[in-house]
Amino acid sequence: MQYSEDDTTFRNPMRFLHTSDWHLGKTLCNANLLEDQAHALDQVAAMARETRAEALVVAGDVYDRAVPPKEAVALLDDALDRLVRGLGVPVLLIAGNHDSPERLGFASGFLGAQGLHVAGTLEAAAPVLIGSAAFHLLPYADPVMARHALQDEGIRTHQDALAAQLARARAAHPEGRRFIAVAHAFVAGGEGSDSELGLAVGGTGEVDAALFRDCDYAALGHLHRPQVAGFPQVRYAGSLLKYSASEATHTKALTLVELPERGPAHTESLPLTPRRDLRRLRGHFDDLMRGPQGNPDDYLFLDLLDEGPVLDAMARLRQIYPNILGIQPAPPAAPAQDIVRTADRDLDPALLFETFFQDTAGRGMDDEERALFHAVAGRLLSGEAAE
Amino acid sequence: MQYSEDDTTFRNPMRFLHTSDWHLGKTLCNANLLEDQAHALDQVAAMARETRAEALVVAGDVYDRAVPPKEAVALLDDALDRLVRGLGVPVLLIAGNHDSPERLGFASGFLGAQGLHVAGTLEAAAPVLIGSAAFHLLPYADPVMARHALQDEGIRTHQDALAAQLARARAAHPEGRRFIAVAHAFVAGGEGSDSELGLAVGGTGEVDAALFRDCDYAALGHLHRPQVAGFPQVRYAGSLLKYSASEATHTKALTLVELPERGPAHTESLPLTPRRDLRRLRGHFDDLMRGPQGNPDDYLFLDLLDEGPVLDAMARLRQIYPNILGIQPAPPAAPAQDIVRTADRDLDPALLFETFFQDTAGRGMDDEERALFHAVAGRLLSGEAAE
Repeated sequence: MQYSEDDTTFRNPMRFLHTSDWHLGKTLCNANLLEDQAHALDQVAAMARETRAEALVVAGDVYDRAVPPKEAVALLDDALDRLVRGLGVPVLLIAGNHDSPERLGFASGFLGAQGLHVAGTLEAAAPVLIGSAAFHLLPYADPVMARHALQDEGIRTHQDALAAQLARARAAHPEGRRFIAVAHAFVAGGEGSDSELGLAVGGTGEVDAALFRDCDYAALGHLHRPQVAGFPQVRYAGSLLKYSASEATHTKALTLVELPERGPAHTESLPLTPRRDLRRLRGHFDDLMRGPQGNPDDYLFLDLLDEGPVLDAMARLRQIYPNILGIQPAPPAAPAQDIVRTADRDLDPALLFETFFQDTAGRGMDDEERALFHAVAGRLLSGEAAE
Repeated sequence: MQYSEDDTTFRNPMRFLHTSDWHLGKTLCNANLLEDQAHALDQVAAMARETRAEALVVAGDVYDRAVPPKEAVALLDDALDRLVRGLGVPVLLIAGNHDSPERLGFASGFLGAQGLHVAGTLEAAAPVLIGSAAFHLLPYADPVMARHALQDEGIRTHQDALAAQLARARAAHPEGRRFIAVAHAFVAGGEGSDSELGLAVGGTGEVDAALFRDCDYAALGHLHRPQVAGFPQVRYAGSLLKYSASEATHTKALTLVELPERGPAHTESLPLTPRRDLRRLRGHFDDLMRGPQGNPDDYLFLDLLDEGPVLDAMARLRQIYPNILGIQPAPPAAPAQDIVRTADRDLDPALLFETFFQDTAGRGMDDEERALFHAVAGRLLSGEAAE
């Protein structure tokens, strides 16, 4: 795909694909997902070809860890080769919090000219111009990294860091292009799952969706469920695969973004079909053993409803479901009514314990248990416990 | 530097630089050599500029290990950027036995067009054409890797592997160009040091220099001392720095290779000046403490001539020589005559022990010691030891 920076008449609508959180090289409960990832990347390449996208954006967490296994390196190499050199679709990658900025960014100075735009560290500031869009690549950087790289002592939080990155991007934005931000962040209001590595303890890693309000489109990564974040044009594309039990109900997809000549971006979700689905399955051992429920080759997390332990449950169930990743006793049924929570210190100890009991046992206390609690608690609270 | 594959009139002599064994990211006795390496790479860039070289060849062991520290990745990135993008000098890199083929070779499909030619795995077969030369990049591959990659079940040894690589290179060699092989191997007859990681146990890693006999030039890596290997045009350029005590007497250098229009290649050694030299220093503790011998900031391995142990020698000597890497008792003076060695089992026990004593103590046994040995050995050999 050829384009010229001097070209002022763009093909409209401009169309690109947004994806993120490939986590190449990830293992899940000892299952190596490389073949699943290769299968999904085949679909990514097919979508790039069929949609005639002018670019593919990968919004961080390309790899699952700073030093990915060499097989994951080879898989990415192959995928990028097919997309960029084979199909002529420029690819834009940023580092997420799982990636090593230096390793992912190696040789990026050479790659841009070949249509492969990689932002590892914060150094590269020039936007990538494709069609009517200027893509601003804002790789993940924690506040300390950003403070150093941007030489801004005022950066204390993730919010500060991203605000500074965006300010720099705005200063470099060329007139007449759509402003596309590509970032990896936990935008407040987004819905998490169990597989995002926390950006920071205590919620300070969150950033405000309003940061992206002026963008024509914000291509976000970090959260694994496809979703909007505060504004219709501020979007998470979601991860390539289901990467935890909590993602069992997600529909993984790529987001196709269309920028018309004027007006807001349109988006369309292009679902991915996994090589193997990942499901939660709930039932009694004997029922599950009676025959497969759904595709038995899926990756499964089983919730066993049996009261007591089941002897050798994993080995026996794996004869039917070979790709069980985990088995656990079923969580208790949801309580019949929502438990009112107030600041815990204001609660009566009896009510507090009642709540704890309900959460733990999945049912209310009976009269005998309540009496026992009062007897024990009474002694404790009156200081008689020492005897 | 621009060149065209169709250009049939070459600038003569064609001139390129040969180096190898950068081992970026190496630490030596806990000393981090990154600054020393950066200092040396500055000189490499200066030489590339001053010699107006048309290419720079790095014959393997670019990094010190398969997963180099991220600072080493950044250092290589910076060096390549300056050489290729800054000076316009194409760089040709192959993986050595210390490098990860997959990691070093990432995105190599993209990089060649930018003048950065990286051969990690054995896949790439096309030579790199620069001026009058065709550079055949033959990355290190052990026999198992080569057998698999070249689909040749006959490959059993390093010799087989390299022969197969060279045969493939010859088949791809374009008419009218000089044949330049770039390889990483232990060519028989080469002189080793303590820092080359053995290619194989028992010497089977060696390959015959005659493999390269027909090359116009063979740019070799693996051995750390600059040297020819069997034929004048088959050369090790040597490592970037002194990487072990056994290299203390080496002069590290780049090799400037000139290919005239006809006839053999000319070579010239361009010495590198280290940020800190690495030296062995031999003396009595008191003498060494009297004042620095040579530049006290050099990396030093000290051989202490004192008979007994010296209290807290390292800490006290480091007050004068801050960069001591190791201290050891001086090895004994060479024995006055070579000790005749035959198969050990054929030796008389007394002669065997005499040899052992000589090796260990650095002198022959005196009569008293010899008598003591005979008394003890006699009892042992006659089975009286049990008493």
